[in-house]
Amino acid sequence: MAPMTTFKGDEFDHQVFESVLKRRFFFTEAFEIYRQSPNFKGDNRGLFDYGPPGCALQTNIVDVWRKHFVLEENMLELDCTVITPERVFETSGHVDKFSDWMCKDPIKGQYLRADHLVENVLKARLARGTRGLTKDSPTLDQATIDEYNDILAKIDNYNGDDLGELIKRHDIRNPENDNQVLPPIPFNLMFKSTVGPSAAAPVYLRPETAQGQFLNFKKLLDYNQGSMPFASASIGKTYRNEISPRTGLLRVREFLLAEIEHYVDPEKKEHPRFCEVSELVLPLLDRETQLSGKKTPRHYTLEEAVRSRIIDNQTLGYFLGRIMFFLLKLGVNQTKVRFRQHLANEMAHYATDCWDAELLTSYGWIECVGCADRSAYDLTVHSQYTGIPLIVKKTLSNPIRVEEWQATLNKKLAGPRFRENVQAIQSAIEALDQITLERMATELSQKGAVSVNLSSLSDAGTTTVELPKELLSISKITRLRSIREYTPNVIEPSFGIGRILYCLLEQVYWHRSNDVARVVLSLPLAVSPTKVMVAPLYSSDRQQQDQARRLAARLRGLGIVVTVDASSASIGRRYARADELGTPLAVTVDSDSLREDGDGWSSVTLRERDSTAQVRAPADDIIAAVAALAAGSETWEKVVARVGIYDGREEEVKEK
Amino acid sequence: MAPMTTFKGDEFDHQVFESVLKRRFFFTEAFEIYRQSPNFKGDNRGLFDYGPPGCALQTNIVDVWRKHFVLEENMLELDCTVITPERVFETSGHVDKFSDWMCKDPIKGQYLRADHLVENVLKARLARGTRGLTKDSPTLDQATIDEYNDILAKIDNYNGDDLGELIKRHDIRNPENDNQVLPPIPFNLMFKSTVGPSAAAPVYLRPETAQGQFLNFKKLLDYNQGSMPFASASIGKTYRNEISPRTGLLRVREFLLAEIEHYVDPEKKEHPRFCEVSELVLPLLDRETQLSGKKTPRHYTLEEAVRSRIIDNQTLGYFLGRIMFFLLKLGVNQTKVRFRQHLANEMAHYATDCWDAELLTSYGWIECVGCADRSAYDLTVHSQYTGIPLIVKKTLSNPIRVEEWQATLNKKLAGPRFRENVQAIQSAIEALDQITLERMATELSQKGAVSVNLSSLSDAGTTTVELPKELLSISKITRLRSIREYTPNVIEPSFGIGRILYCLLEQVYWHRSNDVARVVLSLPLAVSPTKVMVAPLYSSDRQQQDQARRLAARLRGLGIVVTVDASSASIGRRYARADELGTPLAVTVDSDSLREDGDGWSSVTLRERDSTAQVRAPADDIIAAVAALAAGSETWEKVVARVGIYDGREEEVKEK
Repeated sequence: MAPMTTFKGDEFDHQVFESVLKRRFFFTEAFEIYRQSPNFKGDNRGLFDYGPPGCALQTNIVDVWRKHFVLEENMLELDCTVITPERVFETSGHVDKFSDWMCKDPIKGQYLRADHLVENVLKARLARGTRGLTKDSPTLDQATIDEYNDILAKIDNYNGDDLGELIKRHDIRNPENDNQVLPPIPFNLMFKSTVGPSAAAPVYLRPETAQGQFLNFKKLLDYNQGSMPFASASIGKTYRNEISPRTGLLRVREFLLAEIEHYVDPEKKEHPRFCEVSELVLPLLDRETQLSGKKTPRHYTLEEAVRSRIIDNQTLGYFLGRIMFFLLKLGVNQTKVRFRQHLANEMAHYATDCWDAELLTSYGWIECVGCADRSAYDLTVHSQYTGIPLIVKKTLSNPIRVEEWQATLNKKLAGPRFRENVQAIQSAIEALDQITLERMATELSQKGAVSVNLSSLSDAGTTTVELPKELLSISKITRLRSIREYTPNVIEPSFGIGRILYCLLEQVYWHRSNDVARVVLSLPLAVSPTKVMVAPLYSSDRQQQDQARRLAARLRGLGIVVTVDASSASIGRRYARADELGTPLAVTVDSDSLREDGDGWSSVTLRERDSTAQVRAPADDIIAAVAALAAGSETWEKVVARVGIYDGREEEVKEK
Repeated sequence: MAPMTTFKGDEFDHQVFESVLKRRFFFTEAFEIYRQSPNFKGDNRGLFDYGPPGCALQTNIVDVWRKHFVLEENMLELDCTVITPERVFETSGHVDKFSDWMCKDPIKGQYLRADHLVENVLKARLARGTRGLTKDSPTLDQATIDEYNDILAKIDNYNGDDLGELIKRHDIRNPENDNQVLPPIPFNLMFKSTVGPSAAAPVYLRPETAQGQFLNFKKLLDYNQGSMPFASASIGKTYRNEISPRTGLLRVREFLLAEIEHYVDPEKKEHPRFCEVSELVLPLLDRETQLSGKKTPRHYTLEEAVRSRIIDNQTLGYFLGRIMFFLLKLGVNQTKVRFRQHLANEMAHYATDCWDAELLTSYGWIECVGCADRSAYDLTVHSQYTGIPLIVKKTLSNPIRVEEWQATLNKKLAGPRFRENVQAIQSAIEALDQITLERMATELSQKGAVSVNLSSLSDAGTTTVELPKELLSISKITRLRSIREYTPNVIEPSFGIGRILYCLLEQVYWHRSNDVARVVLSLPLAVSPTKVMVAPLYSSDRQQQDQARRLAARLRGLGIVVTVDASSASIGRRYARADELGTPLAVTVDSDSLREDGDGWSSVTLRERDSTAQVRAPADDIIAAVAALAAGSETWEKVVARVGIYDGREEEVKEK
């Protein structure tokens, strides 16, 4: 394909861009005909349908993803349910913590997302140069401008209290009506429902695919014949009940997520294939650089970045490299990708570190892939609640001598005293970790008794039992250990397919010779919705039309996705339509194609989208060339060199 | 592949079969580790996760479906949201009518699905030969036996009142405790939630993908450049809040549906490609045969079935044929498929006719594909509510003269009287159909006034206005019509992917020489989760292991899904594992593979799953043979004929 001409910052016109995507039915607002009806009171914001080209583009991106990650690395793909019992998300922390902060406008009854409110109001003030809504408001002095900019740079780092204070201090109000707003309150982002007729079983729609994968860890490890490290993967719809979604496909309430959970020994975070990516140079915007107020990423090879601990370990580095290669396969512009590390307060509650792959668009840098280190958090909490160990047992080639605290319950005495609860107490004691045991040993010797918490064994709140030293002994013993048990750490690359799709479309969008009416989407053949448009030069000619359909059938037989455009529009308008749909190749059948013997037709033209160059050859050769281009075994340049450029204009003029 | 040996009816052991599928992680109960925890109170019934082989099998079935239907027939694939505003399902009739009947056991507080209750109790009575739970209960006489059998044959045909009467008449009680149950009440099967923070926007999870497609009809027709007929298609998760799901993967609350909506001119239901399927013979169990109490389908060619109107039209017949070809591609047993027509009361509220493709399993005949004629129902109701026409305009080559009723509002007089409502009245009048207009013309002339219903224009109930003849005139006019407008009829083939997957697995399951431990899943290569297992004969041999991995990498490079099994189990046990996973081919590297020059290795063995036959040839030839088998360009028989059978046992014995 020819090199891509991209828009220059200020040239980008959202309205034109989105109108092309909607006209060509890449996507549409869901329930649009209801939204248009004057009686409809529902909320369809943040919900979009993909039309035929958008749907095919999405399928192709998923297909590339599956080959690049799942098949290439033998990941164990799962398909888990979206509907999830409340208890699972209580354990994972999502019920408590998976929230955004929102402020109510008490007069209008409207809810505003708190960080967006601060961001929008401060940006508007900076743009106006004044503190208030009217022109008479006090002008901003330099100190205030600096303060606003500093707040905006760190906007993702504030919690609810911080935001409340900022709103108060800077008198931030609802920009629509200048109403004061109430202090921020958390709004949980999960959609809730109930399962079955009794309504006693609350469920949520999952906000990520990860939990389903974690709950299956034991089975996955078995399936992998106990071997570590390995990864599971899932592609599926996920749901976040955004407070007030805007910005089109970038902030939606229902979206496709492709996630990998890579399970690794916390003491051994090397990756055997790191050498395949170590020389790749990535633009990294680390935490320190951001907190110093800078916005320019620094370029490192992955080798350097891991060695200097900018990236924590090889496995994390390996995946950042693989993510970059994946994005390039899709047709993302290499100069419009950066990797940004999350700030401390910005991270999800389960993450200890996180890097985002961000793509540059007219909305700025957009987070499209997250690569988080979730440590042992999820496996640990699910294991604690269910009592089912989610661990790896590793046989040590040299058994090691270990000193450890051991607690022993005197069952003879405990049995009669605690009756049916004795098993729960025994389990609680077995679940205690070494640090707790050491503390309890001291307490037991000092006070003669300790209390043991049975919280994880009951849904009805915490129960505590007091155990005197007659019932419980804690002592240090020495054991020879031939098996090491550990909870794996999880490195999670997580791909927002819809965001990638939108950002990709912006990056491959351009127009010929500054003519906004001549739009092209330079999608690479691997992901383009249709690979070839086949057209009769004159659709009214029945013979040309039939030949075009026969040719299309032959291409389809080779597994190539093809459409026939036999509409009455001129060939130029049909090429323009194919350009807007991102179709990389076009085959045209004309009257000369019919004049020869054999099957009744021979030479046809093949046009390449980006260059608009054409070649002409016998149909069999063109079909072979298309197959080679589709398989990636030949480039367009090679086809041209072999067949020679053909000036199609002559043909068109002649037939007119 | 060798012909399949299948189980014979009574030999089939559910427990063995499901334990194989669970052990090999085709699927598992969702949230199983929570279910195992004594504290978990949630309901995870009817929710299943697919493990790696189940997930890959599902992906492959979807892939075959997309190629067979969407790409082969240029259908317009959409991806619409699952979350849908309540108003849409009020219009479509699902809020009122998409329910099952359930009976409450008032003592136990348990809900029972009414038809299943009747079915289970009557079947149990027939099996016991008595009317009650104990042995002393009265014995069933022949008349009662006949009556029960008649009820069971028509069980899908009863509505709530019918079921209530049956329960009363036959004293049907909760079989678990003999409690009497309350009369049946409807339970809506859609999951409900709300969107956004205000809770004022109720939504449902879609129970079918169809509505999203219908709402986009106008855009789809535009995208198809106005040309008819055409089809849209969608593959996606759908949700039904089953009252009490059982029977494993067959009745679940979250499932993958692949649906086609084929839009056709109601006056022209021929299909241009009908000739491609017309000679296919299908086993048809039509409505009449069922109501006569018979259960044996009759065999017809599609040509005969359409000609004799057993199947209503060519388009319906065409799709039944295409469905059959699709099922055969997946590996379904041709003798275990039948097509059953729905009984009148059994059909969904939107359908005027429906045929199910049913697959025979140990649970009996299971509905896996529905092929419904939804007529113009859905497009009409959405158009009525939104006021947006969902119609096709067809230019007539010969304009026709039509007589029609026309209603005219006297705006001069109506304006001052109805003010801002005059537009709503005008719209209501324009929406009236010819039959209503004719009725109103009579009424107007007899009574001097008519009332017009504004129901579709307001969410707040019905408003009626009285229009006297001074304000409204209705008369018959003659027009020359050059454009015909019509609402298309919709033929809907709808595929339950999970049910097809489960039934397929049952049909390809067998065991060698009556040894239940030697299970084989004879999945065809096109859908098998893994195409090739590559194994070193002795995994402890580092060289053999490395060679196996190199060979696997070469196959993977050709796009073939391959796994390496280098576990320490004997080669026989690894073959057995591959058989249970349905892997059709295995390549084994042994010490002889290492002895030769070149790359350092040469001949390897290739084993075919069903016959266990092996061939041996240089690695390059085996790779080429595997590629040809995977592409479907060569059969196993041809490979054997070319290379010759190899007796692998010798090798194994020698190396031991």
